Amino acid sequence: MVKRNYIFDTIRKVYQSYGYQPIETPAMENSETLMGKYGDEGDRLIFKILNSGDFMDGVPPDTLDSKSLTKHISEKALRYDLTVPFARYVVQHRNDITFPFKRYQIQPVWRADRPQKGRYREFYQCDADVIGSDSLLNEVELIQIIDEVFTKLGVPVIIKINNRKILQGIAEDIGAPERVIDVATALDKLDKIGWEGVKKELDEKGFTQFQFTKLVDFIFERMTISADNKDIRILANLNALCEIPKSTESPKPEIITEGAKQLKFIWETIQSINKELSNNIEFDISLARGLNYYTGTIIEVKVDTSKCTSRFTSSICGGGRYDDLTGIFGLPNVSGVGISFGADRIYDVMEELGNRFPKDIVATSKVLVLNENSETMALSLNLIQLLHKEQISAQLYPDELNPKKRGKQKEYASKMGIPYAVSIDLTGEKNKIYKVKKVDSNEQEQSVSFYELISMIK
Amino acid sequence: MVKRNYIFDTIRKVYQSYGYQPIETPAMENSETLMGKYGDEGDRLIFKILNSGDFMDGVPPDTLDSKSLTKHISEKALRYDLTVPFARYVVQHRNDITFPFKRYQIQPVWRADRPQKGRYREFYQCDADVIGSDSLLNEVELIQIIDEVFTKLGVPVIIKINNRKILQGIAEDIGAPERVIDVATALDKLDKIGWEGVKKELDEKGFTQFQFTKLVDFIFERMTISADNKDIRILANLNALCEIPKSTESPKPEIITEGAKQLKFIWETIQSINKELSNNIEFDISLARGLNYYTGTIIEVKVDTSKCTSRFTSSICGGGRYDDLTGIFGLPNVSGVGISFGADRIYDVMEELGNRFPKDIVATSKVLVLNENSETMALSLNLIQLLHKEQISAQLYPDELNPKKRGKQKEYASKMGIPYAVSIDLTGEKNKIYKVKKVDSNEQEQSVSFYELISMIK
Repeated sequence: MVKRNYIFDTIRKVYQSYGYQPIETPAMENSETLMGKYGDEGDRLIFKILNSGDFMDGVPPDTLDSKSLTKHISEKALRYDLTVPFARYVVQHRNDITFPFKRYQIQPVWRADRPQKGRYREFYQCDADVIGSDSLLNEVELIQIIDEVFTKLGVPVIIKINNRKILQGIAEDIGAPERVIDVATALDKLDKIGWEGVKKELDEKGFTQFQFTKLVDFIFERMTISADNKDIRILANLNALCEIPKSTESPKPEIITEGAKQLKFIWETIQSINKELSNNIEFDISLARGLNYYTGTIIEVKVDTSKCTSRFTSSICGGGRYDDLTGIFGLPNVSGVGISFGADRIYDVMEELGNRFPKDIVATSKVLVLNENSETMALSLNLIQLLHKEQISAQLYPDELNPKKRGKQKEYASKMGIPYAVSIDLTGEKNKIYKVKKVDSNEQEQSVSFYELISMIK
Repeated sequence: MVKRNYIFDTIRKVYQSYGYQPIETPAMENSETLMGKYGDEGDRLIFKILNSGDFMDGVPPDTLDSKSLTKHISEKALRYDLTVPFARYVVQHRNDITFPFKRYQIQPVWRADRPQKGRYREFYQCDADVIGSDSLLNEVELIQIIDEVFTKLGVPVIIKINNRKILQGIAEDIGAPERVIDVATALDKLDKIGWEGVKKELDEKGFTQFQFTKLVDFIFERMTISADNKDIRILANLNALCEIPKSTESPKPEIITEGAKQLKFIWETIQSINKELSNNIEFDISLARGLNYYTGTIIEVKVDTSKCTSRFTSSICGGGRYDDLTGIFGLPNVSGVGISFGADRIYDVMEELGNRFPKDIVATSKVLVLNENSETMALSLNLIQLLHKEQISAQLYPDELNPKKRGKQKEYASKMGIPYAVSIDLTGEKNKIYKVKKVDSNEQEQSVSFYELISMIK
């Protein structure tokens, strides 16, 4: 918890420094707000809440299969991400919000997935979005935020960017304009399964050999300008995509050009800022991200395994621009862009890498006040108040123990990582009524005054 | 959000200063962990999660009423409070925990109640518990914590205490030993509905006239020692309860004595601590609290309406000792005691009272950097980085606007409460390239250098 809070606090501080405001939304949304926003797989993974009371009352008698019954007995569901509830929130409060609206939100989301390493049924998302501005400077800012957060956390990353419009253009180029998600999903797997695998996947989805060949041609003709310097290569590839090729037969190459120009602007703006990014940023045409609602820039962040020993290959942060998200809820033409940090995965990576958390974040007391007997009890309680006034966290060991059993109290201090154990000693010098012992050392117990005690601890 | 976080942070800091460790548990628990722990009303108010997938598969064909169907189609439920999940957690991790285990937990809970002012379907609880120690010093500490938190929040309160053993003894005294909850619930309403109402309620529940008379006799005979000084009166009443009356016919008066002695210890210990409490603490024999699992001390906190203008009568914090809570989960004989702050209600009270939140907690940027045109864009972005390095939160207005439309950017700054608007001006003196304007003042825009800018803002 203490370590996870450190991750949240790091993200929160960076968000706040860029002017993002905190909001929270309820865990439960109306089912119709969520259903259909994340694809079929998403719908299946949404946790539904059973209606309260006699939920079967009024259900038509023959409604016995799970699917049709669900609508009758469940009206609410747990949020699946923070973006859709945020869109609902923006539409609902549109008259009270000052646009552009920059908000951040750090809350858990729930998915009915099979739990496994790096994938949990309940996990936190840490989102920031800007809504009501189509300036690409928002993308630039979000990339700066990503860079700053991972630099502070000590996790080297690769920030991959792409633009959904390029993918849309490719889908149109190969004559499958309606199937941008299928093309994107297949291309997204290029890294993992290679062209063979992509071909197989497209075959299964009913794409033709001709369409596959056009796809391969496109990528090889327009995307493989080689250059030793990576940055130069990326810019060259983007420039190539910005040109409308003369030989093209595709119906709408302008979309590709538009997407490429947006990416080029982001790329060049980041280069122009005095402060260089600490992490690598890459243009990756095979980057798609599964979510339906992205329409422009797409961002995905992975651990840079060339710079550290992590074997973590999943995305630990991602985002993108969506032009139509609030349209579903009745507020069209409002463009937004956002990112989301996967705090639980980041936690796993930091644990895997080791030594990424500051040493002093463990939340424990500085002092354990030992409770010898009823005679010294009031003085012990009083000491705690005095220490608190000096901003020193201190707790009483609550169970009374005679001095012979003092070992158990010290064992508690040791296990809890509390550095000092203090007891009251009325038999010593008049003003030295405190006996202090450094818990995990062999040093002798010392009789001290209150001021000596304070200076020792501070 | 910003105000609520202030309440959470205040509570969190006090908890931590007393050595409580943070934990969190998942929102969903197995239904059998929660059901039966909060009485029939509680069971009804627990939100149940519909099983994923084809939940009707395998359900016996005639299972059509809501109650019997629930068991088949719902295995998980949303937590109803933080105490029961904590008990489950303690039992599950008993081998890794160092006892006494002091933990705090700040998370939302869910109840299928009709939403109304001061009662929400999702609300935060802020709990602290000590488990594995039966020392009454834990109660003393928790009362100190309550006092410290409300003092810091500026809300005057009355801290009422009682002991469930006294109520248990009364129930036995009137010959209804199994019905302590009914007696307690009726007595709990004494304040609101008077003796007439209590009689009616006990009538309805099947208590006899004889039992009611015994109850009235008990309260009047042993609880109404009058004295002008409230503290003296309380101590006198406690002392009276500590004595075993000679004339009694009750089967087990020792329970009352035991409870009264515990209360007296807590009362006297608090009096003995040098630092006086800021808030009033009262012994209230009609205090019961609804929850089944309390067995010793009971604590309830209400706004002290004699010291402020609040009309808020609900409990805003409460707690107590439970000797058997982990027993249900297979770990008997572990005593615990805890408290819970109702942050949402505290928020409402603080809003009602006004001026309770510090003025500087609003999370906004200090500086809005105006985005004039593409020529100055890189310098604008660079300025944000420079300000961040000086720990000054700053954001860019993302949409490019020509200087004539600058009003929109300043309007944004004003609405968001951002005090300074800065733009880049390449036409001025060489090192004074920043133009700064105090947003909500009539002062002229000034041309300044970076260092002049920093010193103005700081």
